[in-house]
Amino acid sequence: MLIFIGLGLYDERDVSVKGLQAIKDADVICAEFYTSRLMGADQAKLEEFYGRKIRVLHREEVEVDPAWLEEARSKDVAFLVGGDPMVSTTHLDLRLRACEIGIQTRVIHSASIVTAVSGLTGLQNYRFGRSTTIPFPYTARGKRIIPETPYLVLKQNMERNLHTMLFLDIQNQRYMTVNEGSELLLEMAQCAGEDILDRQIAVGIARAGSIDACVRADLLPRLKDWNFGSPLHIMVVPAKLHFMEARALVALAGAPAEIVADAVD
Amino acid sequence: MLIFIGLGLYDERDVSVKGLQAIKDADVICAEFYTSRLMGADQAKLEEFYGRKIRVLHREEVEVDPAWLEEARSKDVAFLVGGDPMVSTTHLDLRLRACEIGIQTRVIHSASIVTAVSGLTGLQNYRFGRSTTIPFPYTARGKRIIPETPYLVLKQNMERNLHTMLFLDIQNQRYMTVNEGSELLLEMAQCAGEDILDRQIAVGIARAGSIDACVRADLLPRLKDWNFGSPLHIMVVPAKLHFMEARALVALAGAPAEIVADAVD
Repeated sequence: MLIFIGLGLYDERDVSVKGLQAIKDADVICAEFYTSRLMGADQAKLEEFYGRKIRVLHREEVEVDPAWLEEARSKDVAFLVGGDPMVSTTHLDLRLRACEIGIQTRVIHSASIVTAVSGLTGLQNYRFGRSTTIPFPYTARGKRIIPETPYLVLKQNMERNLHTMLFLDIQNQRYMTVNEGSELLLEMAQCAGEDILDRQIAVGIARAGSIDACVRADLLPRLKDWNFGSPLHIMVVPAKLHFMEARALVALAGAPAEIVADAVD
Repeated sequence: MLIFIGLGLYDERDVSVKGLQAIKDADVICAEFYTSRLMGADQAKLEEFYGRKIRVLHREEVEVDPAWLEEARSKDVAFLVGGDPMVSTTHLDLRLRACEIGIQTRVIHSASIVTAVSGLTGLQNYRFGRSTTIPFPYTARGKRIIPETPYLVLKQNMERNLHTMLFLDIQNQRYMTVNEGSELLLEMAQCAGEDILDRQIAVGIARAGSIDACVRADLLPRLKDWNFGSPLHIMVVPAKLHFMEARALVALAGAPAEIVADAVD
């Protein structure tokens, strides 16, 4: 059997009691940490906490050639992932592949950044549209390239009055901050010759799930100067706020009080 | 401090290791089980597992007159809820009330039915619109009344090409089944003189988070005859399916294979 086990948000103690037991009982323990990773625990810390060795899989071993999957025919293979499994299409794809070759699967759920962000900000879960990732700019033929996709997704969601969750890029141990993300969004708007983000409220969240999670809402141009501390960061650009959402952002994220007056019922 | 602790989906072992520790360390343990409850554990089982007494609060004590909140000024009060805290507005409201009177708050996250449903069915989280509840019909002046709200919410979501999560009513220990829910939806459509649900795929889910979770997708008129077993049940009426979602419903929920051909890329 292939058992997908969610490790939750931040460190080794965010797994459920049920998940922890299943890890201890498994014959083989695999993990992938490229779609999502726990900032509060590295492989060594997890192995010590479980009292077990973990085989960390590369993208290729998960998506292209999962030879290890064969072991799940006769053994209980635990497959560990950050957050709640299956929110990522990668996990769904792997599960379907296992089903197709007759391997039984099971999911042990855990906290996901998707509902946690909703909980930490007070923004209602059903009002979130498609999420997107802000990538680091790169240089091609001596020119700085900023992909415009995140800005296009954001605009589409705004037109439909939906909130947008913006994941921030990770590259070689370099974690994009809310500050960099805010600046890049403003730059994308500028490239498009538009100023719709200049008076836009946005929310920065750092270390969701940890004891010192930081949540701050402000106008996007001001958010880029706030110190959120260590990673992981994530951003939300909300749609037109409902009254309760505006109240929550003021109380929980220090948003400017005037957003309550602009909110809708 | 007021510490919101999510207990997850099904039984006493779905809380996170971190959450369990916080419960054991708290000075006072309160809980509310009216917005959501664990089907696999009652109060006695939870108390035995924690080795602590729980004070279960009524709706009035949470929403109208939370006098117990005063204790959180000087003590650590754990507030236990099913699922992930804050997905329900009730919890957000309580948190804002605590903030207003200067009480520090903290959230320990857990698995939520919102992402679990997404994981169990393969339906993408960002495509869910507003969710709704199908209530039991009641009798007024000798006439059977079926509220039409769930049908209206469903239609609105369908027009916007969004999935709809339908919670099923609980009344005095009576749990609505997927079968009853399906029948009621069809009856609502009939009352409206519409037949849009006759060829509509729907998904029934029973006991999410338990080892014997059951997920079944079929045409709504057929779903009402499937045996899902013991509660809690929940339903999803999906929008137009993406290819990957259709494949998942066939593999994970036994949906008719022809839905894959109708799916969009």
